[in-house]
Amino acid sequence: MQNWEKNLREITPYVPGEQPDFPDMIKLNTNENPYPPAPGVAAMLKEMKTEKLSLYPNPCAKLLVNELSAQYKIAPERIFVGVGSDDVLGMIFMTCFCSDKPILFPDITYSFYDVWAKLFRVPYETVPLDKEFRIRKEDYRKENGGIILANPNAPTSIAEGLDFIEDIVQRNQDSVVVVDEAYIDFGGESALPLLDKYENLLVVQTFSKSRSMAGMRIGYAFGSERVISAIYAVRNSYNSYTMNYPSIMCGAEALKDREYFEECIGKVVATRERVKRELRELGFSFPDSKTNFLFVTHESVPAEELFTMLREHHIFVRYFKTPRIDNYLRITIGTDTQMNRLLEVLKGYLGKR
Amino acid sequence: MQNWEKNLREITPYVPGEQPDFPDMIKLNTNENPYPPAPGVAAMLKEMKTEKLSLYPNPCAKLLVNELSAQYKIAPERIFVGVGSDDVLGMIFMTCFCSDKPILFPDITYSFYDVWAKLFRVPYETVPLDKEFRIRKEDYRKENGGIILANPNAPTSIAEGLDFIEDIVQRNQDSVVVVDEAYIDFGGESALPLLDKYENLLVVQTFSKSRSMAGMRIGYAFGSERVISAIYAVRNSYNSYTMNYPSIMCGAEALKDREYFEECIGKVVATRERVKRELRELGFSFPDSKTNFLFVTHESVPAEELFTMLREHHIFVRYFKTPRIDNYLRITIGTDTQMNRLLEVLKGYLGKR
Repeated sequence: MQNWEKNLREITPYVPGEQPDFPDMIKLNTNENPYPPAPGVAAMLKEMKTEKLSLYPNPCAKLLVNELSAQYKIAPERIFVGVGSDDVLGMIFMTCFCSDKPILFPDITYSFYDVWAKLFRVPYETVPLDKEFRIRKEDYRKENGGIILANPNAPTSIAEGLDFIEDIVQRNQDSVVVVDEAYIDFGGESALPLLDKYENLLVVQTFSKSRSMAGMRIGYAFGSERVISAIYAVRNSYNSYTMNYPSIMCGAEALKDREYFEECIGKVVATRERVKRELRELGFSFPDSKTNFLFVTHESVPAEELFTMLREHHIFVRYFKTPRIDNYLRITIGTDTQMNRLLEVLKGYLGKR
Repeated sequence: MQNWEKNLREITPYVPGEQPDFPDMIKLNTNENPYPPAPGVAAMLKEMKTEKLSLYPNPCAKLLVNELSAQYKIAPERIFVGVGSDDVLGMIFMTCFCSDKPILFPDITYSFYDVWAKLFRVPYETVPLDKEFRIRKEDYRKENGGIILANPNAPTSIAEGLDFIEDIVQRNQDSVVVVDEAYIDFGGESALPLLDKYENLLVVQTFSKSRSMAGMRIGYAFGSERVISAIYAVRNSYNSYTMNYPSIMCGAEALKDREYFEECIGKVVATRERVKRELRELGFSFPDSKTNFLFVTHESVPAEELFTMLREHHIFVRYFKTPRIDNYLRITIGTDTQMNRLLEVLKGYLGKR
């Protein structure tokens, strides 16, 4: 090792889910939406004035923030936007979790939480989910430097109700409580109504799932003016212009089309409910998903075996080789055609076995 | 102050240059390119398959990295890309400056360096430029935890030659040396030829100036595989997908059009050289700019007075109320028409006075 290398930050990198690229593949491994973004997005790109690209974008992504404000009836000063909810959550970790006390989050949840805690040197403690993969709210009544919960949780797909979330927020008014609602639009109950009561609450959402715009990288947080302005101060000390012009313009455009948004969600939910029934008949069980994915286990065939078999058919689902959940598969809800192919392959394999 | 607020990171926010928005304004304050991006960028946006936006973008921005690799003849493993060079530099600060010894940079330079140092708690020491605003290479021969130099420097516009830069890199092989080449394409000599000799060197460039794509947010760094992989490990622990799909596609497209790139630079440089002559006749002096801006002072009229006067004419330039440079204006090179209007207003004012 040379001397200059001693000054490098050495960190075990987070490994993102694989992005296979076969022409015939069925990609059900990263919880993307199988439907395209709202038609207005295509129109916006087609008509985009490229001379605008020579200029720096508005540092506050004003147009996008104003449209979020209009849609959610929340003042612009209470909205933070970033490059995907990962950027938003990363900034929140850097800004809001500066206590010496550990922050709390479930042992089974979005796998980036402990990565950010390590990166920003935030002490943390994971709190085990119960046997049914449910959060126990009583476990969040101890001293902490902050709390972050995904609701619905991932990869479990389970949503908790508003009273449940309020109980945790209400009992933790000495620290910032973050509710990560990446999947909320598929059937969960958002914590947004609590925002007016709790200044220490942050609600984070994304365009990557329900709005079919994972490729555009747009995430946002709602909170009190106090906490949002603190996050912006840190963000502005890192990079003043994170949202590029196409993201701002297309993001605002997508928000306007409420009807298309609800139509797509309706389709995903209908497919999900049908697939639940069919998977049950094949011997699978799973928590009652309120997301765009299912977290399934089979009565007799190990998850890893099914994962490998599906891969061979170019059907990609997610398998976590992690204690407690290593007999589960996380399967994204795709189109009906994609799910039919999945069910057909599963039927064929389970029947032969 | 409530208890939860005690866990917030309090930081004085960096204030980005103003983004005025008058229909008749002449915007010469943020060093943007007055010409639109390469025609291929408009075509790419027009034909963009929006169904691709539902998917996460390639986490390594492969297409863009491969095109950078082809254009600059540097292996893809030696290229890091980010959301503007601010993102790239921020990641470098987080990754490469982890020594207890202070990093070094000039007292007058890009104003984000000390902001990042504070944000990431990197000890730093600023080194005064000489009276002519030149870097003294002898000053960089003391112990340090890293060095960052903008070349050409901003807001001074002065470029140092390759031997000068090599002297600093060569004498500092125990720490990472970063050369921030945001303005290099307008006439400076890049440090890229040094990359094969020094594993501890990083060269950072951007699409925001010479490629007319500030609105797209694309920056990149070239370095050894060792240092680039360390930066990616930190980046992947923060956010796996920072470059959105339009940036990747349009960035790659812009790089392909070498001819248009050179044509635009030629126009900016020709305008700059002409404006230099005309400003000299009006009593201005300035270092010999190798950038797309001029750093000017007037023999009799204070810079702040000129700044205010130009503002009233909706001509926006940059004025820094900072010791040593508070009698200077930083003026971006716009189109000939824009610069003629600037010269006309200056002539009118200086003549009347």
